[in-house]
Amino acid sequence: MSQTAAGIAAGVLAREIGAGARLIRWLEESDPRGRDALALIYPHTGRAHLIGITGPPGAGKSTLTNALISEQRKRGRRVGVIAIDPSSPFSGGAVLGDRVRMQTHALDTDVFIRSMGTRGQLGGLSRATFDAILVQDAMGYDVVIVETVGVGQDELDIVSLAHSTVIVSVPGLGDEVQAIKAGLLEAGDLFVVNKADREGADALTRQLELMLHLREQTRPHAWKPPLMHTTALTGQGVAALTDALDEHLATLKASGAFTQCLIARNRHMFDSLLRDLAAQHILAAASAQPATAALIHAMQAGQIDPYSAATQLVACMSLQFP
Amino acid sequence: MSQTAAGIAAGVLAREIGAGARLIRWLEESDPRGRDALALIYPHTGRAHLIGITGPPGAGKSTLTNALISEQRKRGRRVGVIAIDPSSPFSGGAVLGDRVRMQTHALDTDVFIRSMGTRGQLGGLSRATFDAILVQDAMGYDVVIVETVGVGQDELDIVSLAHSTVIVSVPGLGDEVQAIKAGLLEAGDLFVVNKADREGADALTRQLELMLHLREQTRPHAWKPPLMHTTALTGQGVAALTDALDEHLATLKASGAFTQCLIARNRHMFDSLLRDLAAQHILAAASAQPATAALIHAMQAGQIDPYSAATQLVACMSLQFP
Repeated sequence: MSQTAAGIAAGVLAREIGAGARLIRWLEESDPRGRDALALIYPHTGRAHLIGITGPPGAGKSTLTNALISEQRKRGRRVGVIAIDPSSPFSGGAVLGDRVRMQTHALDTDVFIRSMGTRGQLGGLSRATFDAILVQDAMGYDVVIVETVGVGQDELDIVSLAHSTVIVSVPGLGDEVQAIKAGLLEAGDLFVVNKADREGADALTRQLELMLHLREQTRPHAWKPPLMHTTALTGQGVAALTDALDEHLATLKASGAFTQCLIARNRHMFDSLLRDLAAQHILAAASAQPATAALIHAMQAGQIDPYSAATQLVACMSLQFP
Repeated sequence: MSQTAAGIAAGVLAREIGAGARLIRWLEESDPRGRDALALIYPHTGRAHLIGITGPPGAGKSTLTNALISEQRKRGRRVGVIAIDPSSPFSGGAVLGDRVRMQTHALDTDVFIRSMGTRGQLGGLSRATFDAILVQDAMGYDVVIVETVGVGQDELDIVSLAHSTVIVSVPGLGDEVQAIKAGLLEAGDLFVVNKADREGADALTRQLELMLHLREQTRPHAWKPPLMHTTALTGQGVAALTDALDEHLATLKASGAFTQCLIARNRHMFDSLLRDLAAQHILAAASAQPATAALIHAMQAGQIDPYSAATQLVACMSLQFP
């Protein structure tokens, strides 16, 4: 395989999974070839339907993702998946289990599953994920599914910036509905009760219905999020969920929200990159200043706290554009 | 209670838990009074022994923390605890369980337990945690314990920058030792097999011994991390662990590493603050530039990718110190 940016970009556009995997790795590792290749493929992005799937550990998100892949494949669509690991240095076992379950599609070249660690991503998880989404998008995947437990600000950014955000709940985990209220209610476009054959599914459904009813009253003219029931392990309800996702996509395209969502995602990347580059720039400039050394010395001597020291240093900078 | 920065700072120095709790909240919420009060208390920080406790979910970290509090109290020490929630919007149940277990010490005014969410912390989890540590330190707590599952870069920063990092393992969770190797082996100062009465404890102990032996060969003159056994639920082994922590503290103080560690932590805060302030500064300056609007427009039209756009903008800036 070519090792140049142009070669990898050509491979990505030719839909070679090996080229896509390499480009995602380059971007993760801040290899300069990654940025060059991304520049070449960027004009070919913007077509994929980005679906975010989130819910608590144990909700069956991976099984549901697996079932959604099968259903999308039946409908003739190529599917990219980005699975975000909880990434505990300790959680190897469970994560491996999830990945193994996805092996159903391992021999299907129209399915590209990439797992992202959440640790040590330069520039943060959301940027690494959006990079990977751009790559899969340029590879012509009709649907890109991002699966995450939805913990942390980065993950909330990711699901909030998806075209269609699916919130998965499951009976028997405790106070799920209260938990959804706290973080993800506003971001959800479709709500799913998975393992709907379990005890407690009816009570959970009633709670979710009430919650969605209250939400609807504050946004009477917006998309009305459907509440679906699935048993991902058997595939029950997955075709109906896919229908609902298709309907949501059609609504987004009709209203222009599909493009708005893409614009918001690219803007998020731009702001995040600008923030990091700016910070590098300023840290490099500041480290060459005698004032910096003096402030750090005073801080270490207990004479000035870190907040005051950093504020003083930034206050004496001036920034110019040509 | 006084609502001024000076009043709260006085309350913190007078060891009032209400004042400490309020200051931590101000700092979390970026209330400007928080920074003012921190500046006032900063000269009184630097004395607490900061202990990081990390390990996988289910290792019994909260129970161990609870037992350590009891033992430290027996030795006449005042104890601050910062418990970092996994913060899933979904995990309310389990977290509540942990906090309830800690109620043993709820009526003891020489114990101050603060729970930190990991979501939506302005400036990140590590800064919010280090802020809370500074507050507890200024309140004269002899020991400050930070308990975290050790997921994510921020949490690794936190445990790495503690004076004494305790890595808790437990038999029966799977491939724990491999997992420790990946992330935390280098950071650990004390290793604990908790639930040491469980099946599998001997095998886990042998694996950890081998690992520590290999680590020792690469660092022959450094502190030799002890491998301890506890059954936190009954308190078994907790006095010995506290002895080992005391010994580690004495070693750090004798070598000057105690102060070095504090310096590294303050420097980490300073760099993180400088990075954020710098980024705010540059984003504000950039948003006023016509070049920025033109680049964003080109990006949204698919003519330039986010990396190239952000790089071009930063390249044309110049930064000056007086």
